[in-house]
Amino acid sequence: VKIAVVGVGLIGGSIGLAARSRAGASVCGHDPDPRALAAALDLGAIDRAAEDVSTAVGEAEVVFVAAPVGALPEIVEAVLAAAGPDCVVSDVGSTKQAIADQIDDPRFVGGHPLAGAETAGVDGARVDLFDGAAWYLTPSRDTPSRLLERLRETIGAFGAHPREIDPEAHDRLLASLSHLPHVFANVLVEGAAAALGREGQDVGDGAPAGPSFRDATRVAGANTAIWTDIYLANRDALVVAVDDAIAQLREVRDALATGDAATLAAWNDRARAKRDRLTGADPGS
Amino acid sequence: VKIAVVGVGLIGGSIGLAARSRAGASVCGHDPDPRALAAALDLGAIDRAAEDVSTAVGEAEVVFVAAPVGALPEIVEAVLAAAGPDCVVSDVGSTKQAIADQIDDPRFVGGHPLAGAETAGVDGARVDLFDGAAWYLTPSRDTPSRLLERLRETIGAFGAHPREIDPEAHDRLLASLSHLPHVFANVLVEGAAAALGREGQDVGDGAPAGPSFRDATRVAGANTAIWTDIYLANRDALVVAVDDAIAQLREVRDALATGDAATLAAWNDRARAKRDRLTGADPGS
Repeated sequence: VKIAVVGVGLIGGSIGLAARSRAGASVCGHDPDPRALAAALDLGAIDRAAEDVSTAVGEAEVVFVAAPVGALPEIVEAVLAAAGPDCVVSDVGSTKQAIADQIDDPRFVGGHPLAGAETAGVDGARVDLFDGAAWYLTPSRDTPSRLLERLRETIGAFGAHPREIDPEAHDRLLASLSHLPHVFANVLVEGAAAALGREGQDVGDGAPAGPSFRDATRVAGANTAIWTDIYLANRDALVVAVDDAIAQLREVRDALATGDAATLAAWNDRARAKRDRLTGADPGS
Repeated sequence: VKIAVVGVGLIGGSIGLAARSRAGASVCGHDPDPRALAAALDLGAIDRAAEDVSTAVGEAEVVFVAAPVGALPEIVEAVLAAAGPDCVVSDVGSTKQAIADQIDDPRFVGGHPLAGAETAGVDGARVDLFDGAAWYLTPSRDTPSRLLERLRETIGAFGAHPREIDPEAHDRLLASLSHLPHVFANVLVEGAAAALGREGQDVGDGAPAGPSFRDATRVAGANTAIWTDIYLANRDALVVAVDDAIAQLREVRDALATGDAATLAAWNDRARAKRDRLTGADPGS
C-alpha cells in the first residue's frame, strides 16, 4: 500500500515507521519544517521526502495528516485537492467535530489515535507507539466502505484498535478521557504549589512531591499552543465534563466532611474496578 | 548502626534493603505475617527475623514502623516500650497529626517518605525506592538533637532528602500533594466510565483510553482499607483542598465557557513552570 504522511512529528513519524515495517508500505512524507523532514528520512520514518503536499500525496492510497488542530482544515483541503478519487485521507487531531464540519468530501475520514505526547518531535517517534492503542475513526454515511476498510486495515497493521464513533460523541468522550485529565493535572499543580508556599516548604532541595503526584501531573502544562486550541475546539463538551467533575467532588467532599467511611470505601472500590476496564490494567495492579 | 523494621512490606522491605546495602546497617525485622517475614529474609531485606516486636527492637538504635495508619499507634507504643533510652523510633504513615497527638515520647519522630505504592508487598521492595525522594520528618521541641541527627543521617544514606515540617503542616501539604491526586484519579475514572456508557462505547475491545488517562488514574482505587483510613485521618485538610480545587475548576470552566484563550494559555504556562519545580522534572520534558 502507498501511504503519505503530511506532518512528520512524533505521531506522523511513528505512523511512517509502523507503515513501513508493519504494513509493508512505501511512505512519502512532507513537513513544512525542512529539518523535521530530513530527520524523518534519516530515521527511516519515510522512504521519500516531498517538497510540497501535492508531491507527497501523489499516487497515495492512504494519507495521514498529522498537524495541530488549528492548522488541519487548510492542510486536509490541500491534500484532498491533490489526492486521487480512490484515496482515503485521515487526520490525527484530538477533536473531531470541527474538522467534520469543515471538510465535506467522502474521501475524508477523521481519526484520532490515543497515543503519544504532542510535545515531542520526530526524534521521539517509535514503531510501537500505537501497540494496543484505541484509534478512533469518524466515518460518515457517505464514506465508501472500501476506503473505510482500507483505513481500518492500515491502522490495524500498526497494532492499534480502530473504533468507529460519531464526531460529536468522540469529542464528548475525549473531554472525559483526555481533556479533563489535562485540566486536572494543571489544577493539582496550582494547588500543590500554593500549599507548599503556605507551609513554607522550599522546593529547591529535591522534589517535594512523590511518584503519585508526578504521574498525576505528567501532562500538566502540555504544549500551550496545541492545548489551548484543543480546549477551545472542544469547550462545550469540556464545560460539561468539568461541571460533572465538580458535582462528583462535592459528593466526595460531603462524605469526607461527615466522616462517611462506608461511602468512601464503596466509591474507591468502584473506581478500581472501572479503572482496570478503561485502561486494560491487570486487575491486581 | 543497628536498625529494626517493624512491618516488612514494600516500604519496610525497601528500608531494610537500603539500610543494609547503603547504611552498612544490621537489620532485624518483624511482621505479623510470617510469610512476609520469611520473604523479607529470603530477599535480603533483613539480616534476622524476630518473632515479636520486643525481640526485633532489642538493641536497635533506629526503628522504623511501617504499618497502616490505623494500626500505627499501638505498634509504636509497643516499640517504645521495648526500645532503649537512646533509640529513635519513626514511622512511615501518610498522615502525621493523628500519630503526633497519640504518642508522647521524645524518642518518637514521625516520618513519611514520598515513595512507593502502599498496595504492593515485600516482593516489590527495591534498594533504590527512596532515591531522590522527599522524606518528611515531624520532630517536636522535645526531640533530642542527637536522635534527630541519627535519623536524618540514616534516611540520607538511603538516598532520600529529609524535610522537617510540623505535623499539621505535613497533613495540609499532603492533602494537596497526595490525597487530592488520589481523589482526582477516582473522579476521572467515574466520569470516563459514565461517558463511555453514554456514547455506547464497548470497553471490551482494547483499552478505550490513552496514556495520559492511564497515568492520571494510576492510583485510582488504591487499596481501599489503607486509603479510607488516610482520607478520614486527614479529612479536615482534604476538605479544604477539595474546596480549593472546585474553586479553581470553576475559574477554568468560566474561561472555557467564554472562549478566553489568553487566560487558558497563561494558566497552562504557569502550570508547566510549577510542575517542573514540584517534581524535579527536566524543564524540557
